[in-house]
Amino acid sequence: MQHYPKSIRNLIRQLSRLPGIGEKTAERLAMHVLRAPGEQAQALAESILQVKRSVQHCQQCFGLSDGPLCQVCQDPAREDGLVCVVEQPADMMSIEKAGCFNGLYHILGGALCPMDGIGPDQLRFEQLWRRVDSGQVREVILATSTSVEGEATADFIARRLADKPVRVSRIASGIPMGGDIKYIDQMTLKRAMEGRHECR
Amino acid sequence: MQHYPKSIRNLIRQLSRLPGIGEKTAERLAMHVLRAPGEQAQALAESILQVKRSVQHCQQCFGLSDGPLCQVCQDPAREDGLVCVVEQPADMMSIEKAGCFNGLYHILGGALCPMDGIGPDQLRFEQLWRRVDSGQVREVILATSTSVEGEATADFIARRLADKPVRVSRIASGIPMGGDIKYIDQMTLKRAMEGRHECR
Repeated sequence: MQHYPKSIRNLIRQLSRLPGIGEKTAERLAMHVLRAPGEQAQALAESILQVKRSVQHCQQCFGLSDGPLCQVCQDPAREDGLVCVVEQPADMMSIEKAGCFNGLYHILGGALCPMDGIGPDQLRFEQLWRRVDSGQVREVILATSTSVEGEATADFIARRLADKPVRVSRIASGIPMGGDIKYIDQMTLKRAMEGRHECR
Repeated sequence: MQHYPKSIRNLIRQLSRLPGIGEKTAERLAMHVLRAPGEQAQALAESILQVKRSVQHCQQCFGLSDGPLCQVCQDPAREDGLVCVVEQPADMMSIEKAGCFNGLYHILGGALCPMDGIGPDQLRFEQLWRRVDSGQVREVILATSTSVEGEATADFIARRLADKPVRVSRIASGIPMGGDIKYIDQMTLKRAMEGRHECR
C-alpha cells in the first residue's frame, strides 16, 4: 500500500470501507478506475453523490424514493387496502422482485431489539397506527423476518392491532422451496408442520 | 432493479461496471452508500475523481506517480545501476511489497503479443534502450511474467541488449514456495530442474 502514490492509497482506503471489500479487492478496483476512461470514473463518482442528494424516504411507506412518494405508493393500480409491514427497504425490494404482492408497504426501519436499544420509539409504529386509523387499510400483512427480533416485532404489532377493525396476518414459515427435509432446522420443521394445509 | 428509484438504479449500474462486481454485490454496495454518512460517500466520490486528476506516469520508469517522478525514482537510497523491467505498474508494486529489490524499474506497459496487435512499437522499448545507452545502468533484470508473451518479451530484450556493455538477467522460474511437487505443471518442473543449484 505505501508504495502507491498518495491519491491511489486514498482511493484504496475509501473503497475498502465498503462492505465485503478487503484491501486486495480495493486495490484491484482502484487499478480498474485508474485504467478506465475518465467519463466512466466521473459517472461513478457522480452517481454516488447523486444517490446521497436525491434519495429520500417515501412520506407514506418510508421506502426509498426519488421524490416525496415512492413508485409503489404513487401507482394507482396497487391495492391501497393491503399494507405489508417489513423491516427494511431491501425487504420491500425482495417482495417487489418476487412480484407476489400488489398492495402497499410500511417500512419499520428495523425490528424490536431491546439489547441493542431498539424499542418501539425507534421504529415507525406510530405512523403505522395512524395509517390503520385512517380507515383505508383492510389487512396488515406482517412480513418482518423470522428471527427472534422479527417475530417479537410481528407479535407486538398483532397485539396492538387486535382490537382494530383490520385483518392482521403473518407470512408463512416453512421449508424453503428446494429445501431438503433432512437439513432443515427443527424450529422450521415445527412451523412447517403446524402450518400444514390440506392437499386438494 | 426496476423497483429502485432512478438514482439508485444508476449507482448500481455504475458499480456493476467494476471488475468482479455483479449486480447483487453492486446492489449491496449501493445500499451501504445510501446508509453511510454523507461525508463517507463524498470522500469516496472525491477520491475517484482525484485519482483520475492526479495520477500520471513517472517520466523515468513509467510507474504510477503523483508527480513527474515516482517515489522510487526520487529515492536517493535506491541503486540506480539496477533496472528491473516489468510489464505493468501492479508488477512493480508486488516486487516493492516483497521488499526484495533496491534498484529502479522500467514499466513496459505490457508484453509482446502480435495476436492482439501489440508489437515493439506499442511498448516502451525505445525508452529502455535510451536508459541503457545513458551508461548509468549496470544490470537489467527481466521480470516480465512467465507466460508465453512475457517470455517472448524477455527474450526480445535480452537479444537486443546482447552487445551492450550491460548485464542482462532473468528472474528465476521454479516451484513456488509451499508448492506441492505433485500438483506442479511439467513446464515449471522442467524449469525448476534446469535452474537447480548446489546445496551448501
